[in-house]
Amino acid sequence: MNVKGQSDRLAGQQKDSHGVSGILNDETMFHDSKVSNISKNILIILEKEYPSLIFRYRKSILKKDINAALQKLDKSLGQTLFVDNAEVKPDGGILEVKDDDGNWRIILVSEAKYQGKDIENIRSGKLVGINNDQDLMTAGNAIERAYKNISEIANYMLSESHFPYVLFLEGSNFLTRDITIIRPDGREVTLHYKSGALNRLDRLTAANYGMPINRNLCKNMHITINGHTVMLQAASIYSKGTGERWGRTEMTEILLEIAKTSLKILGKDLFTQITRKG
Amino acid sequence: MNVKGQSDRLAGQQKDSHGVSGILNDETMFHDSKVSNISKNILIILEKEYPSLIFRYRKSILKKDINAALQKLDKSLGQTLFVDNAEVKPDGGILEVKDDDGNWRIILVSEAKYQGKDIENIRSGKLVGINNDQDLMTAGNAIERAYKNISEIANYMLSESHFPYVLFLEGSNFLTRDITIIRPDGREVTLHYKSGALNRLDRLTAANYGMPINRNLCKNMHITINGHTVMLQAASIYSKGTGERWGRTEMTEILLEIAKTSLKILGKDLFTQITRKG
Repeated sequence: MNVKGQSDRLAGQQKDSHGVSGILNDETMFHDSKVSNISKNILIILEKEYPSLIFRYRKSILKKDINAALQKLDKSLGQTLFVDNAEVKPDGGILEVKDDDGNWRIILVSEAKYQGKDIENIRSGKLVGINNDQDLMTAGNAIERAYKNISEIANYMLSESHFPYVLFLEGSNFLTRDITIIRPDGREVTLHYKSGALNRLDRLTAANYGMPINRNLCKNMHITINGHTVMLQAASIYSKGTGERWGRTEMTEILLEIAKTSLKILGKDLFTQITRKG
Repeated sequence: MNVKGQSDRLAGQQKDSHGVSGILNDETMFHDSKVSNISKNILIILEKEYPSLIFRYRKSILKKDINAALQKLDKSLGQTLFVDNAEVKPDGGILEVKDDDGNWRIILVSEAKYQGKDIENIRSGKLVGINNDQDLMTAGNAIERAYKNISEIANYMLSESHFPYVLFLEGSNFLTRDITIIRPDGREVTLHYKSGALNRLDRLTAANYGMPINRNLCKNMHITINGHTVMLQAASIYSKGTGERWGRTEMTEILLEIAKTSLKILGKDLFTQITRKG
């Protein structure tokens, strides 16, 4: 019983958990590590571009620190903690900048999720299903777990006016157009992006209030409802709508844009450092 | 490819998905249906108690209706829909009341989730793990999917001042105190509620901003941060902290209290109906 917090996330949890490991497969792990590497690289780029600012990268935030942030806003919040060292660990880690008052402020959080192996299966000629006679696998719902970290970081950043959370999606469950794949025997299989058995994008769009995907939503919206203002913290969801892999360059561009948006929004709290002469 | 929206949630999705079916087992299905039955019974109780009001129960909300509700608040929201008939389907369904203007307003949404079979396994003397030599199974993370429906309903209710979302938790992954179970051979096994391998309550408390569990959080909090107001929609999370099952009576009491809180908050929009003479 010494497995801590979330470290068991990709480990074999049950001796018969082939279904889980089928979703959280090698490619997931590859991508998880990739987005963290790209995120670390963003740190280096920002350090060069803004030499007067101090940045840091961290892999996780302790749940007790999220609680402390909530308690600062209102004593009734952030009271519960069951596992003392519980932590929130987005795949791509967390980038922060030190503000003029010496506080670390989040400027980028990222995750990369892969779900749906249909393209690979068709390309390799592998049939699936109970009788090994189907081209397509009914999509699972594991992706819905993405909301947990989004909610945790949103709570941690409740006092901010920006929410720099990037969710990269890949795989056949996140298509935004029909695609046709050729099997080794020459037969063509078309994946219909509007199929309820295949597409899982609708399971994620509550995280951006149904705003467009592939868009920088880092700046929080404030809308007025019945006389009171509601702040919306929307995740920026990026889907490689053709089932292809995200490339290093395009991921870097997206993450850099979000991080810079955060810095701009934080501008007044970074002003002294930015304008200080060497 | 004719499996719609969420209907595949409990169905065998992959031929090797024993891990998934191990989590979503018969007991989950039993409980899902139980909370929907209890919720339907709440409708009958409310109809008797408030004969001048009109109530309805429904199993699901179409994602397109959630989008429409969001669009009403701001044109930039609720734009995306991939699967036309996508719907949100909380286990316990949705209870609504008709307001004085003829609009249906949500007064209760419920889900019941079971995770962690350790108590049953120990009681029956079943050892687990790869070598069948462990008393306890490392907890999975399937419960994190609960955030999806919470987020969807929160968005749908963004213009309301209440959020009557009840999440009932059962099973050994949601203990709030240590418990000791006796095996058939007489050996005692203690389940430590603070174990990171066992307890998954911390994975859910972002949904109530770390406020206490087992508490009616139906009325939204409005907190002021840096001069602007933030509205918090917190799920009311109820855990049977000893791993026991929720009883029909206590679930009814909790759901009734939340539903009545909703009615009270909606009071001014029900006033005409309530005060109308037969």
